[in-house]
Amino acid sequence: MSSSSRMVRLPRPVTFVTGNAKKLEETRAILGPSIPFQSLKLDLPELQGEPEEISKEKARLAAAEVNGPVLVEDTCLCFNALNGLPGPYIKWFLQKTGHEGLNNLLKAYDDKSAYALCVFSLALGPHVEPVTFVGKTEGKIVPARGPANFGWDPIFQPDGYELTYAEMPIEEKHKISHRSRALALVKAHFAAANYAFQTND
Amino acid sequence: MSSSSRMVRLPRPVTFVTGNAKKLEETRAILGPSIPFQSLKLDLPELQGEPEEISKEKARLAAAEVNGPVLVEDTCLCFNALNGLPGPYIKWFLQKTGHEGLNNLLKAYDDKSAYALCVFSLALGPHVEPVTFVGKTEGKIVPARGPANFGWDPIFQPDGYELTYAEMPIEEKHKISHRSRALALVKAHFAAANYAFQTND
Repeated sequence: MSSSSRMVRLPRPVTFVTGNAKKLEETRAILGPSIPFQSLKLDLPELQGEPEEISKEKARLAAAEVNGPVLVEDTCLCFNALNGLPGPYIKWFLQKTGHEGLNNLLKAYDDKSAYALCVFSLALGPHVEPVTFVGKTEGKIVPARGPANFGWDPIFQPDGYELTYAEMPIEEKHKISHRSRALALVKAHFAAANYAFQTND
Repeated sequence: MSSSSRMVRLPRPVTFVTGNAKKLEETRAILGPSIPFQSLKLDLPELQGEPEEISKEKARLAAAEVNGPVLVEDTCLCFNALNGLPGPYIKWFLQKTGHEGLNNLLKAYDDKSAYALCVFSLALGPHVEPVTFVGKTEGKIVPARGPANFGWDPIFQPDGYELTYAEMPIEEKHKISHRSRALALVKAHFAAANYAFQTND
């Protein structure tokens, strides 16, 4: 009885809100069976601002819509020479200017260093303040190398490696990636929090 | 009777939602007494996306909050070499990298052409689809010249001028600026629409 009284009961599995199949695949691969979650694509507004705030606001909106526990994810690619930009706007820059355009943004600078940032936010329900989990991987921006099937992976070379994210075996990437680092924190949180999920079984 | 029956009655003057004193000052100077409006600073979320959509969504949110007619404004500075970016994110780039940083974004390109875009959206009330008014001024990005008291004005030189926005006499700027062009459309809309504003007189 004493252990169950410390549990936080949630009405259903966590809904991971994403429309990106690759992100979902990576998240499933990294989380494994540690957290019961289902995925859902929601058409949520994307905000401008600082990465953690953007993610928290998305979690608030998603929790209100789902009316239950949600996990949302945001990814930024931050160039040090540009004081953290394109950051949360990387998607638009990739879409409009491509890998070469992203390299070109740094043409004026010797400093090609950058960091990949992944922010997960967990909101246990509507009106519950979201908790954030931030994973960061340092590296540099390079001309594209490797398969071009996942966003900006071909132009990001993590520190200590001669390969870009795109060139690395996926298991190797998962060891050091911004996403896996953020998900390690998510896992640790779930392990410590002792949530109980109601099911209909 | 017949003319008044064609009027659209609005419960109060239009609320121009802005927290930027300079934008308010310019809007007042250009609109003059043609449209009864009051100004209000609201803490609205800023969205990512295409300029007109960002502006419309802001108008929807503002109209819901004010529960009456609202006018909102968004400004973009779009670099042709970057396919329209930084665009709606110009504020963050200016803030984090400054005038020199904005010039540096184009270092890799011969094409320094750009356009300033101003989008006004008018929502007559909550649940009324907003109407947009877009003003555009073509020019190029140059190293900063002129007083640095209004955003990116020192680095934008409109086509046909040897002066940047910041160097031009304000009356000259108002003749050709993206904001005045958008506001001319707003004025024309109000002149044609024959709105009647209820007052307590």
